Amino acid sequence: MDDEQGALPGKEDFSAWYNELLWRAGIMDVRYPVKGLYVWFPFGFALRRNVYGALRALLDVDHEEALFPLLIPETELARESEHIKGFEDEVYWVTHGGTSPLDVKLALRPTSECAIYPMYHLWVRSHADLPLRLYQVVNSFRYETKHTRPLIRLREITSFKEAHTVHASWEDAECQVAEAIRLYQSFYDSLSIPVIISKRPDWDKFPGADYTIAVDTIMPDGRTLQVGTVHHLGDHFSKTFSITYEDVNGEQQFACQTCYGISERCIAALISMHGDDRGLVLPPSVAPVQVVIVPITIGRRKEEVTAAAEDIGQCLTAAGIRVKVDSRDLRPGAKYYYWEMRGVPLRLEVGPRDIDSGQVTVVTRLGDKSTIPRAGLEDGVCAALAGFASALTGRAMEHIRAHIRVVQNIGELSAAVGRGVAIVPWCGKKECADFIGESTNASVLGTEIRSAFVPECRGPCAACGEEGTGALVGRAY
Amino acid sequence: MDDEQGALPGKEDFSAWYNELLWRAGIMDVRYPVKGLYVWFPFGFALRRNVYGALRALLDVDHEEALFPLLIPETELARESEHIKGFEDEVYWVTHGGTSPLDVKLALRPTSECAIYPMYHLWVRSHADLPLRLYQVVNSFRYETKHTRPLIRLREITSFKEAHTVHASWEDAECQVAEAIRLYQSFYDSLSIPVIISKRPDWDKFPGADYTIAVDTIMPDGRTLQVGTVHHLGDHFSKTFSITYEDVNGEQQFACQTCYGISERCIAALISMHGDDRGLVLPPSVAPVQVVIVPITIGRRKEEVTAAAEDIGQCLTAAGIRVKVDSRDLRPGAKYYYWEMRGVPLRLEVGPRDIDSGQVTVVTRLGDKSTIPRAGLEDGVCAALAGFASALTGRAMEHIRAHIRVVQNIGELSAAVGRGVAIVPWCGKKECADFIGESTNASVLGTEIRSAFVPECRGPCAACGEEGTGALVGRAY
Repeated sequence: MDDEQGALPGKEDFSAWYNELLWRAGIMDVRYPVKGLYVWFPFGFALRRNVYGALRALLDVDHEEALFPLLIPETELARESEHIKGFEDEVYWVTHGGTSPLDVKLALRPTSECAIYPMYHLWVRSHADLPLRLYQVVNSFRYETKHTRPLIRLREITSFKEAHTVHASWEDAECQVAEAIRLYQSFYDSLSIPVIISKRPDWDKFPGADYTIAVDTIMPDGRTLQVGTVHHLGDHFSKTFSITYEDVNGEQQFACQTCYGISERCIAALISMHGDDRGLVLPPSVAPVQVVIVPITIGRRKEEVTAAAEDIGQCLTAAGIRVKVDSRDLRPGAKYYYWEMRGVPLRLEVGPRDIDSGQVTVVTRLGDKSTIPRAGLEDGVCAALAGFASALTGRAMEHIRAHIRVVQNIGELSAAVGRGVAIVPWCGKKECADFIGESTNASVLGTEIRSAFVPECRGPCAACGEEGTGALVGRAY
Repeated sequence: MDDEQGALPGKEDFSAWYNELLWRAGIMDVRYPVKGLYVWFPFGFALRRNVYGALRALLDVDHEEALFPLLIPETELARESEHIKGFEDEVYWVTHGGTSPLDVKLALRPTSECAIYPMYHLWVRSHADLPLRLYQVVNSFRYETKHTRPLIRLREITSFKEAHTVHASWEDAECQVAEAIRLYQSFYDSLSIPVIISKRPDWDKFPGADYTIAVDTIMPDGRTLQVGTVHHLGDHFSKTFSITYEDVNGEQQFACQTCYGISERCIAALISMHGDDRGLVLPPSVAPVQVVIVPITIGRRKEEVTAAAEDIGQCLTAAGIRVKVDSRDLRPGAKYYYWEMRGVPLRLEVGPRDIDSGQVTVVTRLGDKSTIPRAGLEDGVCAALAGFASALTGRAMEHIRAHIRVVQNIGELSAAVGRGVAIVPWCGKKECADFIGESTNASVLGTEIRSAFVPECRGPCAACGEEGTGALVGRAY
């Protein structure tokens, strides 16, 4: 909770910048005495509340929130064979209660299919029960052996939003996949984070799924970060867990299912996409403090200025804006530094001259300075917040545009993936993907790409020369 | 998720009533395949959201929310010797990641002192950092060997709100204890749940605390339920975890601490205190649906009635009331049954006659029927909700009053504890408490009782006859 002064490492040294920023901005403390487990500071947690509040609001339109247990008996986890194969190396096992060994080992959920679907088996009876759309926001666990990193690769994922839906047919489930993608797109739009949607290659799909659609964004260093996935589960799990319903003709049918998830990686993307060398830059939609008011109290009119700042704070609070009046006994420059580090979208400076001229000086976190008349300040601030959000979106779009290249062959691809992602024609064969991956030290991440920045792409496969379509290639976190 | 018809067991058979109600009202499913772990249905979860929203709002005034890891290394958990002794029989241990044994076993937090205080050691430096007041809402775990019961005795406590504060002196921490009690009192007042505050006997205090203040309520069967605890930790943990600060004179001092918690037992109390033979009865402050509108569409004016119901629904929603218009194709009686089971405070009936007379029929969940003019309906409904909340509080006070007896000797005590709790003079000695407990099949729960229904009590100890003061005696869940 110290607030040390001094410059951050430059964002061009992304890893150093990211780690230092998490600490300095009060997001996370990495000093917890177990590798891969981190502590949310209050400011970070306030940001998390707002981000997950936005996600819940989107889901609550036609989903309901529920809560299932953390502990999954080994017997349930092992029921779907592909699924357990996908997770068995990274499951944490509870083997003892007190000093007694348990009869059946309990897994800490890596994801909740095997906790939820035994209940769906009991709950789903008739076509009238469908579609069923539930979600939960929970902690989940992976015994990561790779290098861990706060918010990105964790052993306790503290904020896993997972939705699980049940439908009467494969086609209904496919419509839900489309709907989930639309939801996730809206969510990331609200955070000013442009994303690239693609279908993961078959060998990279979720264990037990028919197919997986992934949501990726591009980090400052050009690597991709998977920030959401949507899985069409077909009837794999419904056959394993006997999730059946009586159709309109009175026949028992296996249901089809989807599931889709977002973890706190959404917050890693938020921080990384918008932050700069002075700290966080937060979209107004989720910033814990949207406006900070700094009284400029030099000279004799200190009380008058402080009162004016308080008054403005109350007006803006009444207008539903999250405001902080910083009346601490510090020089203004120290306050600017403090709130810039925490990404506050707008700073209002109130000094004697502002009072005399009936206005307030506004400085955005991107450095744009203007004045707003005191009369009508609420509207002016709302407009400035909206303008700031647009500017952030524009800046982020520019970042993505600058880090996507459409290329035609391995040589161009190698040059491009060092600086971002590339789209290259690929025939769809695993051995060609392997060749592309090995030649470029990257991976084929997906096909059927949906992004405003990616034109339709066809051509000879970069590996074998056979007819191919555009594949997303990059280095992933 | 079935909605079976038929009567609940009567509330006088509390255990049967409680279990059946949790299922029928859509609070919890007890069929998860591990003992002591339960599933929150969406309606139950919506209630939980509102209850914990109210608790957070109270805490957020001068606490901040944070989040600490679930997994505590054995080495940290073992540092405070009394503390580990108090929990070692009921800790779940993670011993393996994938197929590899872990170097250091990890406990699932039974409570978070040993996860949080190593961080407080790092965070607290100076008197200027104090007081520090944080809380978190998390799942925590106890390997219960006793009979488990949903929301009351769980292996996964899904909703543990725990606050942990740090202060410069023992006296400052004592003030925080008083403040925490005030907060908890306000919280339970907002749920119309009267509580009894008392100081637990020394042998029942929290492991590692100087003393423990408990918040109890009385269940329908006369047994007590502990629904909150506040602990003065003195400097036990700060000495163990080296939580020190530099005082104004530049000297290093050990800090003093408190912690206080509320689990989903608050929801067990809410359900049990107010529910009746027809189902839940919920205070408007936390009811997921505050008002249900049932169109009475018999005969030819169906469209007009449906439109009027929708219109009323929109008006009330705009006024900030949580409203549901039940337009399902069911007879009104089935709808009444459904929403009564779910505890909805007010039912508005809208039929042709109501439309003609410019009014709406209102029936409270306690059965009071009246009419409110359509003009000014919003104010009328708000007043009816407030009146309903008062009625609930009055009813609950009456329940508590009827289940507390002040008695003077073992004979009277034995008769009284069968029907509720009793206050009896006790000298403070452990052997006398044991004698009282054995003679009455109950326990001495606390002293220094604070309750509107308990007068000051002194007299000869019911066991030894020496001078004593009032002790709370009852059978606890």
